[in-house]
Amino acid sequence: MPAVDKLLLEEALQDSPQTRSLLSVFEEDAGTLTDYTNQLLQAMQRVYGAQNEMCLATQQLSKQLLAYEKQNFALGKGDEEVISTLNYFSKVVDELNVLHTELAKQLADAMVLPIIQFREKDLTEVSTLKDLFGLASNEHDLSMAKYSRLPKKKENERVKTEVGKEVAAARRKQHLSSLQYYCALNALQYRKRMAMMEPMIGFAHGQINFFKRGAEVFSKNMGGFLSSVADMVQR
Amino acid sequence: MPAVDKLLLEEALQDSPQTRSLLSVFEEDAGTLTDYTNQLLQAMQRVYGAQNEMCLATQQLSKQLLAYEKQNFALGKGDEEVISTLNYFSKVVDELNVLHTELAKQLADAMVLPIIQFREKDLTEVSTLKDLFGLASNEHDLSMAKYSRLPKKKENERVKTEVGKEVAAARRKQHLSSLQYYCALNALQYRKRMAMMEPMIGFAHGQINFFKRGAEVFSKNMGGFLSSVADMVQR
Repeated sequence: MPAVDKLLLEEALQDSPQTRSLLSVFEEDAGTLTDYTNQLLQAMQRVYGAQNEMCLATQQLSKQLLAYEKQNFALGKGDEEVISTLNYFSKVVDELNVLHTELAKQLADAMVLPIIQFREKDLTEVSTLKDLFGLASNEHDLSMAKYSRLPKKKENERVKTEVGKEVAAARRKQHLSSLQYYCALNALQYRKRMAMMEPMIGFAHGQINFFKRGAEVFSKNMGGFLSSVADMVQR
Repeated sequence: MPAVDKLLLEEALQDSPQTRSLLSVFEEDAGTLTDYTNQLLQAMQRVYGAQNEMCLATQQLSKQLLAYEKQNFALGKGDEEVISTLNYFSKVVDELNVLHTELAKQLADAMVLPIIQFREKDLTEVSTLKDLFGLASNEHDLSMAKYSRLPKKKENERVKTEVGKEVAAARRKQHLSSLQYYCALNALQYRKRMAMMEPMIGFAHGQINFFKRGAEVFSKNMGGFLSSVADMVQR
């Protein structure tokens, strides 16, 4: 593991083998980070998906409980108690649905969104700049090869000057793209820690709120109601 | 809506049009209850399915957080903090997973199972006894028709006696099956209230426990940890 923590921009112009070797270490790290981020995003989207499905499922259950009243049972004697109890349970499920919906929104905004943004912005930027740097390096290599293939005769001086200009332009372009690429790789190292921890902070905050509010809603009051319903069922 | 709340067994033998009409009311009610129970079961199984998926999703997320340490990042400098934080979050997700797993088990045992048993035992019994009663009634009708088609001549006395015995046997059989069928329909009316409310009592108890324990786990201690992580990310 190298002791450095960033690519030095002043090394970019010289483009030495040492710098290239260090660059490959940063590139490997970015590759590992991209793979890991994709897997983490997948796991987080699965949690979000389950949370969302819980919203839809509680919504359906609440509706189904209300629907008892509209069944027009041929024998409705004694149904008033069942109807009012199921209507009460439907309200309880509605309150639970509100909690689940809030949690789903919080997971979307504070867990899934930050990691998607990290992938779309930081990781994609590194990958794009890597491609551009590769293209500029190739162009530079080609113009260098062209220059070195020129005959050494004196009458080619004009052509030599022209190709020399091409080489200089290609080197400037490569230098510029390497500067941008180095910057992005350095920024990625800086962003990495935050990008890994931020979604889980959002996740944990969401869960804390969810359980706090849930404990309030499903409090002892409901316990009292439940034992009276249980008594009713026993009769 | 008839003012009666059960089929009288002593009416079964006479099998009058009034009794048949009352029976059809009970049958209609059982049909509505079967349809409603199937829809309610479907809604409850969807909630249970979402709860189960949440168990699997949190399990995957916890594993994925632990996996950060095993990525062998080429640049691991400063990763110790990220690793220890993600390991902590993995433990938090594990604790959440325990809560979700308990809730899933409770929903299976106290919500889904009772309504499945109601369907498989009570509703299926009524439906089976309805078929048997139908068969016995048909048999009785056939033997009655056979008896009434017999020529009135005196020499047929022996055949008449035999067919008369057949009619009596068929009537006994129909009577017996109607008694069983009436009993099952009466029992269904008795079980209906409990069958509708019991699963929701189980559901509510499960939620109460879940939020109570969740509020304990996701308490202020974790709030303190989160703000220290947030501070760390800010640096």
